[in-house]
Amino acid sequence: MDHHDTDVCVVGAGFAGLAAARMLAGEGREVIVVEARDRVGGRVWNRAAEGGTVLSVGGSWLGVGQDRMFALCREHDVEVYEQYFDGDTVLRLGDTNHRYRGMIPRINPAALASLGVALKRLDRMAAQLPLDAPWEARHAARLDRQTLGGWLSDPTHVPTATARSMLDVTMKLLFCVDPAEVSLLSALVLARGGDGFEYYTDTAKTETHLVVGGVPALADRMAAALGERVLLEQPVRRIRHDTDGVEVTTPAAIIRARHVVVTAPAPLVTQIEFDPMLPAGHSHLLRRMVPGSMIRVQAVYERPFWRDDGLVGEAIAPDLPVAVTIDQSDPTGAPGVISGYVFGPAAVEHAALPAADRRRRCLDALVACFGPRAAEPVDYVETDWAAERWSLGAMIAHFPPGTLTSYGPALRAPVGRIHWAGSERATAMHGLMEGAVRSGERAAAEVLAAG
Amino acid sequence: MDHHDTDVCVVGAGFAGLAAARMLAGEGREVIVVEARDRVGGRVWNRAAEGGTVLSVGGSWLGVGQDRMFALCREHDVEVYEQYFDGDTVLRLGDTNHRYRGMIPRINPAALASLGVALKRLDRMAAQLPLDAPWEARHAARLDRQTLGGWLSDPTHVPTATARSMLDVTMKLLFCVDPAEVSLLSALVLARGGDGFEYYTDTAKTETHLVVGGVPALADRMAAALGERVLLEQPVRRIRHDTDGVEVTTPAAIIRARHVVVTAPAPLVTQIEFDPMLPAGHSHLLRRMVPGSMIRVQAVYERPFWRDDGLVGEAIAPDLPVAVTIDQSDPTGAPGVISGYVFGPAAVEHAALPAADRRRRCLDALVACFGPRAAEPVDYVETDWAAERWSLGAMIAHFPPGTLTSYGPALRAPVGRIHWAGSERATAMHGLMEGAVRSGERAAAEVLAAG
Repeated sequence: MDHHDTDVCVVGAGFAGLAAARMLAGEGREVIVVEARDRVGGRVWNRAAEGGTVLSVGGSWLGVGQDRMFALCREHDVEVYEQYFDGDTVLRLGDTNHRYRGMIPRINPAALASLGVALKRLDRMAAQLPLDAPWEARHAARLDRQTLGGWLSDPTHVPTATARSMLDVTMKLLFCVDPAEVSLLSALVLARGGDGFEYYTDTAKTETHLVVGGVPALADRMAAALGERVLLEQPVRRIRHDTDGVEVTTPAAIIRARHVVVTAPAPLVTQIEFDPMLPAGHSHLLRRMVPGSMIRVQAVYERPFWRDDGLVGEAIAPDLPVAVTIDQSDPTGAPGVISGYVFGPAAVEHAALPAADRRRRCLDALVACFGPRAAEPVDYVETDWAAERWSLGAMIAHFPPGTLTSYGPALRAPVGRIHWAGSERATAMHGLMEGAVRSGERAAAEVLAAG
Repeated sequence: MDHHDTDVCVVGAGFAGLAAARMLAGEGREVIVVEARDRVGGRVWNRAAEGGTVLSVGGSWLGVGQDRMFALCREHDVEVYEQYFDGDTVLRLGDTNHRYRGMIPRINPAALASLGVALKRLDRMAAQLPLDAPWEARHAARLDRQTLGGWLSDPTHVPTATARSMLDVTMKLLFCVDPAEVSLLSALVLARGGDGFEYYTDTAKTETHLVVGGVPALADRMAAALGERVLLEQPVRRIRHDTDGVEVTTPAAIIRARHVVVTAPAPLVTQIEFDPMLPAGHSHLLRRMVPGSMIRVQAVYERPFWRDDGLVGEAIAPDLPVAVTIDQSDPTGAPGVISGYVFGPAAVEHAALPAADRRRRCLDALVACFGPRAAEPVDYVETDWAAERWSLGAMIAHFPPGTLTSYGPALRAPVGRIHWAGSERATAMHGLMEGAVRSGERAAAEVLAAG
């Protein structure tokens, strides 16, 4: 066993952990980051597809207001480029492809209106929540005993079936589970962190830029700046803690520190042995913060052929296995990459199929949206985030009903010398890479303030 | 490391595991039971109170229709005795104690009527569910996107505040969480397994008998009959599995077997490393099956003094920290024992207080229900099941909304050579010791049928 003594131990080398460690090191604190994987980045990952093309297969896009992420890219000489936007989106309903440009699909005006009214109504409810403590909102208990799925399925909220179907697929994509699993309050908390659901549903807001070399390049450079302070392949088994300090144990190392910042996703934190055990409020919260299933499907073509047809590479196809796509092509235009998403209960079913069947289903879906040229990619990869040992799901954890009102105050409260970060613990930009960075910096500030 | 080769490895020596092992051994199979604790019984436990009185601090009562439990008691020469029933129950609403005998509290008739109507309505919905596959019910999706708390708080379902408060405390006791956490479908599944909520709420049905020496005496005798097949203090770290067999690893032993029956509660199963990983449908289900908080408070008196006042020792006091009590006295009448329950969010708060404050709050509550003689017990003990490392909550896991419809089919389905048992995996008598035994015997039958 290696023994380390340090000021702060950071558990997890995703953006939350890297941002926390960077800030602490910048303030002269000794830091050690322990990461379970053999790479940094967590839910961002540059992975080689079957044929060798390296693709960003996790978090990839930056958007409006994500100031910390853009600033970190600038500081680390990581270049960004604008998302391709010159073309029509495909909306496939039943067997028909509808095309539209911008945010407003060409669907039946009643459906369109009811979609807009429902989103506005949700946003109005979200705007009333206190950002830091939504469980203290006046109607918190009432909102938290409803599910997002229950709200959406109520015809008085969403009067047309088309609008319901579009909202359902949007919310399934955001939470990667059936909206029946998600507390209405917690869905509004997500919206509140981006000043409205529109922020999360409008690619012109959340997907304005891609990163040259993939956003994992930024994680790599942040880790490189930390140098030997980052220990890979060190899954944390136990955290002992008392009023004097903490002791973090991995299979190969024991790190003694004055504070620990835990940034790992909740289902991984519940696999760590805390000694003494965490207070019930905190461990109940952790056990309830569960992610869903998301399979990212990337098909690589010599060129982004869909642009020839005036298409932007985005598709919304609630009835297909790959229900959403977006253009993730190289800034040079070659290769062309379609990034598709299989999510929620559909991803659980998809994951159980043989690989050849999965590939056929996915390519058939792309053909339905973009035509026959989609059938023969030059490279292809599926990334099943629920099968990743050190993620156990994607994209983020949601809060089931009753969780925030019963256990919400534990979300960001330190437990003695244990501090908490991670995108799900962010207030603004909750669930995004930007939220992860901000949560890490907030936890680092807590440690600095503690002296 | 000890190496064992056997036919079947059973993980967990609660009633599910003991019943499975007993049945398998009875059919001539070689069995090894691995148990994390230094005792058998799981959620049943004979524990010494502060002053040395040994009390059953977990599952304790048997009831109508619990045929397997009564049969096992007979077979193992464990005696049972009738629950004391000759007296009035106390219903404390605000600062007033109401007394009543039997099932029907003396409260305002409108409250009483609306209580009855609401329970009948829930029972009617429950009766329509298929016992084995409630997720296939016609309205399953609609029921599963509602919460029990949402349903109960709707004045069209429960028109009076008193009835709502009584239903709320009843459901909180059953699930040990705010009813907002519980899927309406899953609450109906529990009711369905006992032929109606009344089964779970009427002590004259579920608490007809206590066991001489405590029900843990039965677990001890079942374990004794298994002899050296039961290995204690062997928490399972990893289960490797393939088409040929399984390999179960603890810190001190490796058990190779043809099948494994996993009976541990879900939050403990999620701490086991499965190699290969479980299918997403199963691991998502496990991560969502979370228990709540329950602190069992037992006060021991020289005699059951409340009987002198014509009280039966039962109290329902929704506004007090100890919101429910029951008489758990020795069959000889000495000592007298009141068993009280602090549960749900109230238990999370209670657990965070210093021990002296907790004791004072609890005894004050007993005094409010049973008079000043309750203030000075001769012995006393609190058992916080959420703080028990090898339970992590109580009494049972509930299913949050959306869980059963998305992942329910994984509940009892074997994963290759891994079979599942435990009270939460039972159909009839789900959540009771009887359900645990039946689930263990069902899993054992699966293994036997597999040859």
